Amino acid sequence: MLKIDIKNELAQKAELVNEKIDFLLAHWTGIPKRLADAIKYVLVAPGKRIRAAIVLLTCELVCGEVNDDALTAAAAIEMVHTYSLVHDDLPAMDDDDFRRGRPSCHKAFDEATAILAGDALLTMAFEIISKDIRTPEKSVEMAQILAMAAGPSGMIAGQMYDMQAENTKQDAQMLELIHINKTAKMFQASVCLGAAAGSANETQKKSLRQFGMNLGLAFQIADDILDIVSDTVTLGKTAGKDAQQGKSTYPALYGLEESRKKAEKMVQAGIESLDAFGDKAGILKSLAFEIIDRTK
Amino acid sequence: MLKIDIKNELAQKAELVNEKIDFLLAHWTGIPKRLADAIKYVLVAPGKRIRAAIVLLTCELVCGEVNDDALTAAAAIEMVHTYSLVHDDLPAMDDDDFRRGRPSCHKAFDEATAILAGDALLTMAFEIISKDIRTPEKSVEMAQILAMAAGPSGMIAGQMYDMQAENTKQDAQMLELIHINKTAKMFQASVCLGAAAGSANETQKKSLRQFGMNLGLAFQIADDILDIVSDTVTLGKTAGKDAQQGKSTYPALYGLEESRKKAEKMVQAGIESLDAFGDKAGILKSLAFEIIDRTK
Repeated sequence: MLKIDIKNELAQKAELVNEKIDFLLAHWTGIPKRLADAIKYVLVAPGKRIRAAIVLLTCELVCGEVNDDALTAAAAIEMVHTYSLVHDDLPAMDDDDFRRGRPSCHKAFDEATAILAGDALLTMAFEIISKDIRTPEKSVEMAQILAMAAGPSGMIAGQMYDMQAENTKQDAQMLELIHINKTAKMFQASVCLGAAAGSANETQKKSLRQFGMNLGLAFQIADDILDIVSDTVTLGKTAGKDAQQGKSTYPALYGLEESRKKAEKMVQAGIESLDAFGDKAGILKSLAFEIIDRTK
Repeated sequence: MLKIDIKNELAQKAELVNEKIDFLLAHWTGIPKRLADAIKYVLVAPGKRIRAAIVLLTCELVCGEVNDDALTAAAAIEMVHTYSLVHDDLPAMDDDDFRRGRPSCHKAFDEATAILAGDALLTMAFEIISKDIRTPEKSVEMAQILAMAAGPSGMIAGQMYDMQAENTKQDAQMLELIHINKTAKMFQASVCLGAAAGSANETQKKSLRQFGMNLGLAFQIADDILDIVSDTVTLGKTAGKDAQQGKSTYPALYGLEESRKKAEKMVQAGIESLDAFGDKAGILKSLAFEIIDRTK
């Protein structure tokens, strides 16, 4: 088996989704200028595009190539993820002035524009899924995946629990509920969107769903750890905020060392669900390790 | 032709969509309690359900009955409309403490919960469209209609222009752009969703689209007029706000009398596009007159 250069793989996939996003924005007419500027400012920002890369890599795993449906779904999940960051950064929410190495949307523009830009990105994701996916069946499957992961029983539930748990006693059950909903369901959705784009069968979808959930949980633990051990410039967002805001995090509950072990365990569990794919799953496995080894 | 009791018709249709919404909310699991409370508070509030009624009446016009797809679409458009009100009322937006006769969402709960409840309602609309519509083709058609009307080239564009035009010189072209985007496109979407639910043919859809646009413009002019001539208790929202905030409105540009004439002209134009439907279109025609004659 060849050694996989996962950083290079991720950079290539990010490039593909960035091209797709540039294309979509360049051809979207009728958006008021200031709103279009805000959407572009947040969506074209130098993000990691990890969720998009997962869509593309999963599609590649199941059908051997990155197809147009995967690119559309990848752009859609980045739109939804970006909207959640824009709204999360608002003063009434996490109140963060700094995101992806630059002033957050409401600082670069204003609060009203940031609210509307977030609303717009969420709606745009469903517009491209409904317009650009090649068969109605896949379009509907993808809209379901995205809506369920992003909705009030998914990501929004996670954001709500996250806020409610601020400055309360750390609680393992609540912590898991926050991480599953706030982060892991969107990772799982990324995997499921890639599986749908590549026409995976039901057995493959089941394994991939498990992988996605574990990957997402590992990612969020790594994120919690980075908030403590890294700095604002490296992260591109304010470091040390979790402790300052009394957030429920793995390191706060279990300590750094134990949290690292838990993340590794989840990556291992995730990787096992890919066994049936054999060597072909090498890239997704490397991605899982990269997610907990990253520095930003 | 029998005389049509349009108020009674609207009340019956509102009852149908209210039952549908109650059912959907009662069966939606996994929403954090406070978030579910906020969603229920705003969505079950005593609204006019005019957009939902248009979906149902249009479906009835083209296929003779209100089917399940129409009820789902009616609930979806009310979710999207309600989300737009919740976000519009936020302090950073129109800053309104009063809506549908009660404290607005961020007053009854808090700003963060209101932001998330709005986000949730928008996502829920696409979830039910992707899950509950009977054929993938119709589901995709409806998701497109909804996303395009509600997105950054539709309703959100209207909200953005509306804010930008505050306290600037009244301008007929900008006023039309605001009303088309902020209000008329969602009315048009309501008509188109009903047409899709009832399997209208292309000729019918074209006539109905025209009707929807005119109906929406007439509704917004009537809304602008009511903001001046009515009071807060009757409206259930703060009266006199447009002038106070220096909004671009028809009465501000043309005066009350001329605005009334323009609304009537639009209703007439809308009604003409229904000619091919004959007597069957009587209810939609009555609805159009009711929209400019209403007191709240």
